[in-house]
Amino acid sequence: MHTFDPGYGNDPYAGLVRDHPGPETYPPEHFRVEWGPIFHRGRLDGTARVLVIGQDPAAHEAITRRILVGTAGRRFQGFLAKLGIDTSYVMINTYLYSVYGQHSGNAHATDPDIAGYRHDWLDALIADNPIEAVIALGSLADTAFHTWRATPTGAAYTGAYQHILHPTYPDSAASSGTDPAKALAKLLTNWNAALQALHPTVTPETPRPLVPYGTTLTPDDLGTVPEADLPPGLPAWMRSDEPWASRQGSTPADKRATITVQVPAGARTF
Amino acid sequence: MHTFDPGYGNDPYAGLVRDHPGPETYPPEHFRVEWGPIFHRGRLDGTARVLVIGQDPAAHEAITRRILVGTAGRRFQGFLAKLGIDTSYVMINTYLYSVYGQHSGNAHATDPDIAGYRHDWLDALIADNPIEAVIALGSLADTAFHTWRATPTGAAYTGAYQHILHPTYPDSAASSGTDPAKALAKLLTNWNAALQALHPTVTPETPRPLVPYGTTLTPDDLGTVPEADLPPGLPAWMRSDEPWASRQGSTPADKRATITVQVPAGARTF
Repeated sequence: MHTFDPGYGNDPYAGLVRDHPGPETYPPEHFRVEWGPIFHRGRLDGTARVLVIGQDPAAHEAITRRILVGTAGRRFQGFLAKLGIDTSYVMINTYLYSVYGQHSGNAHATDPDIAGYRHDWLDALIADNPIEAVIALGSLADTAFHTWRATPTGAAYTGAYQHILHPTYPDSAASSGTDPAKALAKLLTNWNAALQALHPTVTPETPRPLVPYGTTLTPDDLGTVPEADLPPGLPAWMRSDEPWASRQGSTPADKRATITVQVPAGARTF
Repeated sequence: MHTFDPGYGNDPYAGLVRDHPGPETYPPEHFRVEWGPIFHRGRLDGTARVLVIGQDPAAHEAITRRILVGTAGRRFQGFLAKLGIDTSYVMINTYLYSVYGQHSGNAHATDPDIAGYRHDWLDALIADNPIEAVIALGSLADTAFHTWRATPTGAAYTGAYQHILHPTYPDSAASSGTDPAKALAKLLTNWNAALQALHPTVTPETPRPLVPYGTTLTPDDLGTVPEADLPPGLPAWMRSDEPWASRQGSTPADKRATITVQVPAGARTF
């Protein structure tokens, strides 16, 4: 018996998917529009208690067609598990398309057409679900939340809100020269503070005493993306802890055009 | 405005997808079970007039998660267009998983568990749709049809049936040493005979005089997979005439484990 995400067959999500913005709103020099929009991950059936705003999809997400399934997703899934939340969440991104270029994300943080479509999703999700907390991953998601807060629907939201460091902050900080162990410790301190604030607020599916992160991220701290979050038929290794998708190419254009999908060694039966 | 395949949210298809067979039924030495099952393409809303049985999914299908979208699919889409059928069809495969190895397909042509699950799909599709014709692509699909015909539901089917050469017959014949032009001519003669039989039988969505194939396959003979056949968000080039997915690897195991997805040159805006 397998579960799967039934997708976008019902309104308002069917209508939102039909009317998604394209290159007229997301300029191709700043967004990888050629891989198509990727909309969400999690519950669209009215059972979400936590609404997550991520940043933008990466290579793994372009294949699964659901957001936050790669490294970032597995780290954050572990954060939700510490709150006793295993499936009662819904996640959307600040951007429908993958950001291309170092400054492109910031350049479009307040574009009205990008925000307007995102607000349609936020409004629908808030109307349909008993959302107790919104969590923004990273500063672009924080801007997205506050932009929505300035709308009438956003202003009416009365639940909790936490802006936390993006799950891949340690990786980007390390690639900019920060000591990797210090960057990871900063993430975990930041996440522990948010857990302290949210643990008494969010109604758990499975009540668990709060176990904060230590000074480093252990394998037990990673969550597993539930089978119910991916489209039907996707193999289990697409939800595993091993990376399996990467951009490849000897020129920037070829690298932008190519994603190599590889069954991880641990999942090969041949 | 974009259309998309809403997928398997409703029964009986939701139940069929939840209960799909895995490696206990499809031995991994003969099927690429590691890429997951791929179920269908086309209408699941009761509007199909033509039911197509294909063979097994290939690399493009492992990414789109819908069958018959690569070369075979585009050729056969053109066949349907000649019947005036643009969207009123539903396609399943003989096998849920991609065949691995030259004789593996034949070795499992009558496996009862594989057939039983396929019969559940055929029974559901026949019950839900005004099917006027079943078309089998290749000899394994023909065996699948006749195996179903031996069941009570299959015996009760009163519509037309045509077994035609598989759309990639010319390619496999050429790789076995047959003159490519002769192999293609054989396919087109075979398809023309089937068109003659089906054209008066199948109620067209858009009535068109029958224009048979010539002695070779022209670009006009290829159909385009409709946007409504793929999951939401997949880019248009995944339905184009240019190949974009391939198995890569320097060893058989690596090649089995790897699919490279590449935006075709004509679809790059960068």
